[in-house]
Amino acid sequence: MAKNLTTREENYSKWYNELVIKADLAENSGVRGCMVIKPYGYAIWERMQAELDRMFKETGHQNAYFPLFIPKSYFSKEASHVDGFAKECAVVTHYRLKNAEDGSGIVVDPDAKLEEELIVRPTSETIIWDTYRKWIQSYRDLPLLINQWANVVRWEMRTRLFLRTAEFLWQEGHTAHATKDEAIAEAEQMMNVYAEFAENYMAIPVIKGTKTESERFAGALETYCIEALMQDGKALQAGTSHFLGQNFAKAFDVKFAAKDGTLDYVWATSWGVSTRLMGALVMTHSDDNGLVLPPNLAPDQVVIVPIYRKDEEFEAVNEVALNLMKKLRSKGIRVKYDNRDTQKPGWKFNEYELKGVPVRIAIGPKDVEKGTVELARRDTLQKEFIANDEVVEKIISLMDEIQENLFQKAASFRNEHTTEVASYEEFKAVLNGKGGFILAHWDGTAETEERVKNETKATIRCIPLDGDDVPGTCIFTGKPSSKKVLFAKAY
Amino acid sequence: MAKNLTTREENYSKWYNELVIKADLAENSGVRGCMVIKPYGYAIWERMQAELDRMFKETGHQNAYFPLFIPKSYFSKEASHVDGFAKECAVVTHYRLKNAEDGSGIVVDPDAKLEEELIVRPTSETIIWDTYRKWIQSYRDLPLLINQWANVVRWEMRTRLFLRTAEFLWQEGHTAHATKDEAIAEAEQMMNVYAEFAENYMAIPVIKGTKTESERFAGALETYCIEALMQDGKALQAGTSHFLGQNFAKAFDVKFAAKDGTLDYVWATSWGVSTRLMGALVMTHSDDNGLVLPPNLAPDQVVIVPIYRKDEEFEAVNEVALNLMKKLRSKGIRVKYDNRDTQKPGWKFNEYELKGVPVRIAIGPKDVEKGTVELARRDTLQKEFIANDEVVEKIISLMDEIQENLFQKAASFRNEHTTEVASYEEFKAVLNGKGGFILAHWDGTAETEERVKNETKATIRCIPLDGDDVPGTCIFTGKPSSKKVLFAKAY
Repeated sequence: MAKNLTTREENYSKWYNELVIKADLAENSGVRGCMVIKPYGYAIWERMQAELDRMFKETGHQNAYFPLFIPKSYFSKEASHVDGFAKECAVVTHYRLKNAEDGSGIVVDPDAKLEEELIVRPTSETIIWDTYRKWIQSYRDLPLLINQWANVVRWEMRTRLFLRTAEFLWQEGHTAHATKDEAIAEAEQMMNVYAEFAENYMAIPVIKGTKTESERFAGALETYCIEALMQDGKALQAGTSHFLGQNFAKAFDVKFAAKDGTLDYVWATSWGVSTRLMGALVMTHSDDNGLVLPPNLAPDQVVIVPIYRKDEEFEAVNEVALNLMKKLRSKGIRVKYDNRDTQKPGWKFNEYELKGVPVRIAIGPKDVEKGTVELARRDTLQKEFIANDEVVEKIISLMDEIQENLFQKAASFRNEHTTEVASYEEFKAVLNGKGGFILAHWDGTAETEERVKNETKATIRCIPLDGDDVPGTCIFTGKPSSKKVLFAKAY
Repeated sequence: MAKNLTTREENYSKWYNELVIKADLAENSGVRGCMVIKPYGYAIWERMQAELDRMFKETGHQNAYFPLFIPKSYFSKEASHVDGFAKECAVVTHYRLKNAEDGSGIVVDPDAKLEEELIVRPTSETIIWDTYRKWIQSYRDLPLLINQWANVVRWEMRTRLFLRTAEFLWQEGHTAHATKDEAIAEAEQMMNVYAEFAENYMAIPVIKGTKTESERFAGALETYCIEALMQDGKALQAGTSHFLGQNFAKAFDVKFAAKDGTLDYVWATSWGVSTRLMGALVMTHSDDNGLVLPPNLAPDQVVIVPIYRKDEEFEAVNEVALNLMKKLRSKGIRVKYDNRDTQKPGWKFNEYELKGVPVRIAIGPKDVEKGTVELARRDTLQKEFIANDEVVEKIISLMDEIQENLFQKAASFRNEHTTEVASYEEFKAVLNGKGGFILAHWDGTAETEERVKNETKATIRCIPLDGDDVPGTCIFTGKPSSKKVLFAKAY
């Protein structure tokens, strides 16, 4: 089918940008680096939010809301944190506009300058830990398990829809604990929640691991992450969970009295996923015909298209369609019935293929006669005729089947594009060949990591948690290495 | 019960502030005018969001997301709009911080000045209509029915938790239509949706009406509103829906081709409710003992408190409590079982009264013996003993009963505090006496409205839609008036 879509083969990056816009997921706005998330894209994000929110609540977290603005002085209290975010932040300096005295229009009122500048939050550790000081006195107040759904701003210079935008939507969990072990367990738990969400809902296989020191979150002692592989062989970090030690508690003086009365600083974690996941979803499953959505996240799981030429044909087709819609909805399936007469069936087929609806049902006069419908799967592009009395059951089982198929397909791709290498020559050959994840020994130094990055653009995505622990020698320096780490070029 | 809460009689305003903080709804943050919404307060807001979102979707609206920042030039395109918001907005002027050269800390980098200042959205008409220009070409693209859940910022000088904060959370609907009538019908529909939500979910009776010209939204041709009455006799605007005419379509050049090919500007509405509703909820139902929550919005509808002295008593009590919790949950009732041993029952009773949980169940050893539980209603403070085998049914019916009782109580109060007056003397006497809503004839001029406001602080809350249309003479000027309008002092 011709979607006027650049193919992945031709230009993967262009394919992505076109697809995001043509499938009505998002578009650029008139504000530099800020996107508009369109209704269809937002509907997918809402489904992601609902599932994640349920998982957070099931693990004991509550939602709350903290200010958008962070006073500059708060921002500066944790040294590595300010280093990490100061270079790319939106700064509010005034609180009023006025008419220019020379009549040239509306200008900033110089008399309305703030005493202290406010930073639009790039992440909320500082404002939240300033609040936690008031909330935490005793071990009875712990653990404090809070999540926030919010917009954040990082003044990125090169932006791409969903993958890197100046403003994005995310959730950020911020928890406080009495012990180091408990905080580490929380950070690990949330990495596992993210992995479960990515694999079971987004159908994206991920590798769990920890970041190297140089790739850690600004202010963290350990960053756990999940790493996914896109179809162009580049990695995408899909979620991170940080063990923050006592850094923020010390910066904001948050202490608690233990049962025995001794005072100690609180232990912290933070963790987040963002609308970047939308980019991962698109790039993992979609093809040259458009989006391919896993049934668990598709706003419409099934679309029904009536086919008829004369008005008298419509009545019978419409009856079968409405009946099927009703039955499917009663089973909890999300069904769209597109009976618009302003668009032809061919146009609609194209449209829903582009938008990745998992199952398309077409019903024409001949189908009505035969008591069948035509069913098309988006993932395999296969079509078949199904008897009316079997179609509901078929669709219900297809939901699981398609979900599973997408995961398996992505997992096969990922496995085929994960290579263990023993030398730097091999490393570069794979990187410039099929790409993907490369498992290789590394000597553990930031220097080597930096040199490999500068020479090849590949970074250490993570130190896998599930990898084997066979020691060896660094492919770059020949120095000893305790285990292989995961390299890739990344988004 | 002593909650150390100022009484409403003593100082209504202080009572409100204390209650919001002590019931863990919200607190002030370190950022001027910005609040922290605490988990308990946010849980109530989440319930409001869920109901409203459902109602919006049922009326055909979809969610989307638009940028936080609005370029100054957009903001200026609709003249009355910029007049309305320019005096109180947060302005982003720079995009980077740096280390001061004199080592004095982190400062704004003067080299990172934006070419055009960005306004943190106080409302999104301008950025959204700039986007709609790209989305709307033909009548086929209409109506466009979009809603956004977002944070907005208005640099208010005097702020109060929930009622008036520099940053607040809200939803803003922005719709586009082919005809004037359709847009007006949409604006009226959304006012009705808000009224239904206020009355059925929040148990707050409201008066529907239109605003006078001087009280209209900046850029609207008509503002519909719902007005509620608080226990101190002051009115609170609980939601507004605006018919914007073609003002924004003209400012942003949004035209559509009709079926006959003619081009015309699109007709618009916008409508919103905010976290201000939390303030209305608190001030309508709560009493000197604390919050009183309607069951439809209470995060916990029932709390179960076990009473025991010795550990051996706990086992039997716990069994009855767990059993009851399970049964209630299977009926869809939100139940909290507070079996903490760190707090005494009396403390818990106090706590849940303060937090407005509609029904409290206490179970002690004697209850276990007798096969009863003690049930206390938060709204009436009545207690009774109920047989175990009747308690589930009792609680289910109580949910509706309490919801209805709160509405009726608020409606009675509102009716008792709504006075029709025939003279300005009477007007002032009521205003300085029992307060509340005052229905009076007005000559329809902004001048009279302004003078009454200056002399009495009362404003015209709305021109009621359901009021009788008996003509008369203005209480202030004696000039003719077509119908009575609703005055009050207001939040």
